[in-house]
Amino acid sequence: MVRKGNTLKASRRLRMGMVGGGPGAFIGPVHRMAAELDGGIELVAGAFSSTLERSQEAGRLYGLADDRVYASCEAMILAEKSRPDPIDFVSIVTPNHLHLPGARAALQHGFPVISDKPATASLQEALELESVVQSTGLPYALTYTYTGYPMVRQARALCREGALGSIRKVLVEYLQGWLSEPVELSGHKQAGWRLDPARAGIGGAIGDIGVHAFQIVEFVTGMQTTQLCASLNSVIPHRQLDDDCSILLTLDGAVPGVLLASQIATGEGNGLRLRVYGEKGALDWQHELPNQLIVRHTGQPAQVYSAGTDYLTVDAQKVTRLPVGHPEGLIEAFANIYREFGDVVKSGGALPDSLPGIRDGVRGMRFVQRSIESSRTRQWLAF
Amino acid sequence: MVRKGNTLKASRRLRMGMVGGGPGAFIGPVHRMAAELDGGIELVAGAFSSTLERSQEAGRLYGLADDRVYASCEAMILAEKSRPDPIDFVSIVTPNHLHLPGARAALQHGFPVISDKPATASLQEALELESVVQSTGLPYALTYTYTGYPMVRQARALCREGALGSIRKVLVEYLQGWLSEPVELSGHKQAGWRLDPARAGIGGAIGDIGVHAFQIVEFVTGMQTTQLCASLNSVIPHRQLDDDCSILLTLDGAVPGVLLASQIATGEGNGLRLRVYGEKGALDWQHELPNQLIVRHTGQPAQVYSAGTDYLTVDAQKVTRLPVGHPEGLIEAFANIYREFGDVVKSGGALPDSLPGIRDGVRGMRFVQRSIESSRTRQWLAF
Amino acid sequence: MVRKGNTLKASRRLRMGMVGGGPGAFIGPVHRMAAELDGGIELVAGAFSSTLERSQEAGRLYGLADDRVYASCEAMILAEKSRPDPIDFVSIVTPNHLHLPGARAALQHGFPVISDKPATASLQEALELESVVQSTGLPYALTYTYTGYPMVRQARALCREGALGSIRKVLVEYLQGWLSEPVELSGHKQAGWRLDPARAGIGGAIGDIGVHAFQIVEFVTGMQTTQLCASLNSVIPHRQLDDDCSILLTLDGAVPGVLLASQIATGEGNGLRLRVYGEKGALDWQHELPNQLIVRHTGQPAQVYSAGTDYLTVDAQKVTRLPVGHPEGLIEAFANIYREFGDVVKSGGALPDSLPGIRDGVRGMRFVQRSIESSRTRQWLAF
Amino acid sequence: MVRKGNTLKASRRLRMGMVGGGPGAFIGPVHRMAAELDGGIELVAGAFSSTLERSQEAGRLYGLADDRVYASCEAMILAEKSRPDPIDFVSIVTPNHLHLPGARAALQHGFPVISDKPATASLQEALELESVVQSTGLPYALTYTYTGYPMVRQARALCREGALGSIRKVLVEYLQGWLSEPVELSGHKQAGWRLDPARAGIGGAIGDIGVHAFQIVEFVTGMQTTQLCASLNSVIPHRQLDDDCSILLTLDGAVPGVLLASQIATGEGNGLRLRVYGEKGALDWQHELPNQLIVRHTGQPAQVYSAGTDYLTVDAQKVTRLPVGHPEGLIEAFANIYREFGDVVKSGGALPDSLPGIRDGVRGMRFVQRSIESSRTRQWLAF
Repeated sequence: MVRKGNTLKASRRLRMGMVGGGPGAFIGPVHRMAAELDGGIELVAGAFSSTLERSQEAGRLYGLADDRVYASCEAMILAEKSRPDPIDFVSIVTPNHLHLPGARAALQHGFPVISDKPATASLQEALELESVVQSTGLPYALTYTYTGYPMVRQARALCREGALGSIRKVLVEYLQGWLSEPVELSGHKQAGWRLDPARAGIGGAIGDIGVHAFQIVEFVTGMQTTQLCASLNSVIPHRQLDDDCSILLTLDGAVPGVLLASQIATGEGNGLRLRVYGEKGALDWQHELPNQLIVRHTGQPAQVYSAGTDYLTVDAQKVTRLPVGHPEGLIEAFANIYREFGDVVKSGGALPDSLPGIRDGVRGMRFVQRSIESSRTRQWLAF
Repeated sequence: MVRKGNTLKASRRLRMGMVGGGPGAFIGPVHRMAAELDGGIELVAGAFSSTLERSQEAGRLYGLADDRVYASCEAMILAEKSRPDPIDFVSIVTPNHLHLPGARAALQHGFPVISDKPATASLQEALELESVVQSTGLPYALTYTYTGYPMVRQARALCREGALGSIRKVLVEYLQGWLSEPVELSGHKQAGWRLDPARAGIGGAIGDIGVHAFQIVEFVTGMQTTQLCASLNSVIPHRQLDDDCSILLTLDGAVPGVLLASQIATGEGNGLRLRVYGEKGALDWQHELPNQLIVRHTGQPAQVYSAGTDYLTVDAQKVTRLPVGHPEGLIEAFANIYREFGDVVKSGGALPDSLPGIRDGVRGMRFVQRSIESSRTRQWLAF
Repeated sequence: MVRKGNTLKASRRLRMGMVGGGPGAFIGPVHRMAAELDGGIELVAGAFSSTLERSQEAGRLYGLADDRVYASCEAMILAEKSRPDPIDFVSIVTPNHLHLPGARAALQHGFPVISDKPATASLQEALELESVVQSTGLPYALTYTYTGYPMVRQARALCREGALGSIRKVLVEYLQGWLSEPVELSGHKQAGWRLDPARAGIGGAIGDIGVHAFQIVEFVTGMQTTQLCASLNSVIPHRQLDDDCSILLTLDGAVPGVLLASQIATGEGNGLRLRVYGEKGALDWQHELPNQLIVRHTGQPAQVYSAGTDYLTVDAQKVTRLPVGHPEGLIEAFANIYREFGDVVKSGGALPDSLPGIRDGVRGMRFVQRSIESSRTRQWLAF
Repeated sequence: MVRKGNTLKASRRLRMGMVGGGPGAFIGPVHRMAAELDGGIELVAGAFSSTLERSQEAGRLYGLADDRVYASCEAMILAEKSRPDPIDFVSIVTPNHLHLPGARAALQHGFPVISDKPATASLQEALELESVVQSTGLPYALTYTYTGYPMVRQARALCREGALGSIRKVLVEYLQGWLSEPVELSGHKQAGWRLDPARAGIGGAIGDIGVHAFQIVEFVTGMQTTQLCASLNSVIPHRQLDDDCSILLTLDGAVPGVLLASQIATGEGNGLRLRVYGEKGALDWQHELPNQLIVRHTGQPAQVYSAGTDYLTVDAQKVTRLPVGHPEGLIEAFANIYREFGDVVKSGGALPDSLPGIRDGVRGMRFVQRSIESSRTRQWLAF
């Protein structure tokens, strides 16, 4: 069992300030665990909730001193700026409508930003954020979680190296069942904001999980969506936002693709799956079996690649901590994104090709916007 | 281990005459094995190929006497009619363009017909055949193979009994890889006719496997396609017919569905999969694991139903020959269709609900026709 | 989709007489379907039960004329001998205690025999049968079902060709759950005789399924068991025969193996699995997923071989009827054994290496005998 | 998606000192990540290697100040004792021969200990350590990793609640392939010490992974091994310690079990699997698919329990951080053990039932010792 990766950093830990992630949040603690996993980052400050009291309540659970816990993102930014040991960057884990204000404020005050997806609540906001990122020149990254998995990196390397030949068909699906009942009506906090246009933005399932499916297609294949024809539905009738999406795609002007995203797929957990078919071979990755990648070549037995092995590409090996057969999961994938972001913050350079940034953010929101338009008009649209 | 089903018949064997299935055919021998498996049917005559010589060559391999082997379907029908021991029905296993002439001739001379799918080479032909079937009042069945699997019967029973609640989303995919290379250019007989409009008819992959996917959706759910928006492609450029299809469906006017059928899905075998999501539960059946059916209900562990068990519905049990853990496969599924058809021939009654007939045939060809139109116009169409 | 194998025979069908397989039998109908599947054999006579009346009742279900149905194996043999169209061979599908008398009588009157396993009810009987087989020189085969699967043939070829290097460890398990409740007390016919020493012989689970596991190890690896240390249990206390077995093996004097066979493994179906680990590679076959074989080589992705593909060895391809992705099951595997046996009967030659015969029969009963002795004395024993 | 567990602690972080885990170690970084994952523990000191220089080199990678890094466990203990902010406990992650000296020294100086398994290098040492633990009354825990998985906790709860009825058969296997080649001869550090009796102790595979398999059986079922009959082998001949083990067990004086542990199972990763068969039901857990547990009951479809769901027992839910479908892996399982240990250190109470301690340590070493004796004498032995 060879030790994988170098998970330790000789230099001082980066200091992170978090926005969002207060009581009832699901993703805040995941960001904290992921950021700190490899020992290179430490959560030291936060504006976890919309009142100081609740923010401090959360801060104590995170083990923070009260004087590093704030009532708002703006308050945190201003206070931290004047400290001798300020935060090095801001992590934004709020509902979508607060992504732009938080990121904009942080960037404009000189703090790099790492944000949960989608980038913003609308395409217009994403374009505004793009301007801010470009004008400040500061690092801005998006935690498209699934890009952090070793086997997704392997899949990407295979596509880029031409191991599949020219790509001919792409299938991506992201199926969840947790909204198959109207849980938002009975106080389910996560469901509450995700189905509320005022907080989620223009997209329901399309914005919450559709963007993941969209992004992983482009991330892995290197192709770009050029046309789409979408069918978005609110299967549970009262809902203001979609909870189910089926979308025909055209990639790079010619290659057919299909994207499915649904949160009413009763009984499903978190079923993201990507299948790419090329002239010479194909690949198949399923999130719920994240440490394997199936690769098929015409006329040969199917191959099952396993994480933690020596035959993987360097791209995959360097985001692996454990030897073969020792499962890594979502927190580790998330941590890989934080590690790469931390490296950028330290080095001050550009985002590596493997780290999603504002370009992915804008494309994702354009995808949401175009899908909604296509579904409304029941037409194919240019991307 | 309880003995499953009653695979034996006390009465005389029905005599079958086959059209098609000569040298190089794949499906002819499957029909023969399936028809004879349970001992109720015997292949006694055939017009296996387009010349008498090749037909007799095949006939000898099937173990038939030369005087029961013919040069054409018509010759067989006329000769058999005047025998004291004539065939009881005709099985049609030719390329698609010969389905209508064979079936029409047989029916018009008083012979029941069982035919491989699709019903015909075009919608117009299917409507003509429908008239013939209706006017003769004779049994006509289509070997939609997958309807013969016990776990598909189980799936159907679950849907019909309301075990899933109202159905909200249907996903069906049928992925093959055998046409990912242009094998039709190097003498591959199966590929040759299936990609030739003169023999396959108007549909390529859509007619060859798309109709299976379409039919199983309606068979299992009891719902009907009412609108569709299709993207049909000839991924290998020279091809005159489609080899890849992605189709958005609307079922019963409201329920979203997605149908994928591709023969350029490199490395796939014969990957038919049906997923149905309802208000209360969901089911998932994959052809390559045919003896299990996954059923999920909200808030409960997933259930894996196994063929050959006592907890299955009678519909499933009566088409099972072996106890749990003893795999049955495609030949047995096929045999179930023949068994049910044989019962109809003997009893002279109507087709049972479980046996696809001309209605499925016409709907299948309408599906092919509408999909082609939708893809050409890039529009949603009413079914 | 390439047509696999040549499932048709130009010559006349062989005539089969069956012993056993009457009302309530599970395996009789399987033998009939398997024998007839490829069109080379026809069931024409039988002594299905111990009274003429019940035998004829079964005969009618099998579609036989009353004058070819007999009250005993001996009656059948004598009557058929004097017919102009006598049976070509005898198939024995009775409970174990009737295997020797039936096979001996048939062979001594000049009829080749194919018998269900185990060969006999005791080692002594097996040795006696071996003498008869040797003295008559007639074909005698055992339906060790699992040897008929294409992927078992593939596994065997890989071992024999040295693809795994020298073999270092063998694991075989055969787990069923159908005797986890005392069903024999409530009239379960199959359970009744299999747990009755007067009919099953000396072995319970060890004789019923343990011999399958034992035989497949030697069949695939080409190695021989040389020592064993067994723990046989009657987990349900009143039982006179074992229902659960765990056995340490030594193969070829040095290689460790483990054999598990249990019929009280609650919830299991028919879980035969063979794993072979060699110096260079390993293989893993599971009966409930019979059309795939997993092969692993050090430092490479695991490979999943699929039945019906062109990359398989000739040994596997010639026992395959359908293209990749079209499942074949137990009846087809069984049919492969009958087809090979039929070829021997026609040609009159020796059994091919792939067809289990009396040698496997004797070794199987020696395995049962030694396991019982080892378990009683709680000691390692030479085989 | 409901937020699972409370991964945050309001009180100050516990301070951990680590022994071992220096350059080339695999498990040291895992302990660090696991200990710190939930924010309740911080690595602040260490004696990572046998020279100060190499220890400090490692310490810098762990982000520690040089003055908290020591040349030996004893040096760390003495220095930390006199600090105002001393470590709260010692984590021992060295090769086996240093487990006893490290644990003994720490305990005798008043520091609780958490140690990697096996407890010691021999049974005699384990008994000595047991005395020390008992006389000091301090917390001592063993990181039997797999006990930390939610689905193992679920399995345990099902057994304890009687959901399976009385247990009748237990199968455990732990198959790895990484020692199928003599990598210890070419400088593989992990292989080097694990196959060296001076550092690994009396057991090879039996001590490295066999003890995991042994412990999980008793942990989940609540039964105790009472007899065993072992076959231990050094499949690669020059090796001084076993690399392959097959062991028949008797549990609670009557129940048959089988334990397999091998490190020469070519191509296997880290294949721990536990199957428990009871009168009413059975369970099946596989480490490489850690977030599911298969449960079977007679006469019902198999059930697949998923981690992160609400239908799990509290025992499972409280060690889960993520909602269903979001994989957790080995680091999270490990972290659950550290979290429970941290709670004990803080509370000063006894180990909870779910946390393996010295009793498991002694039983594990007795298992190693008895297995070696049994294999040498080729006899069944009382435990």
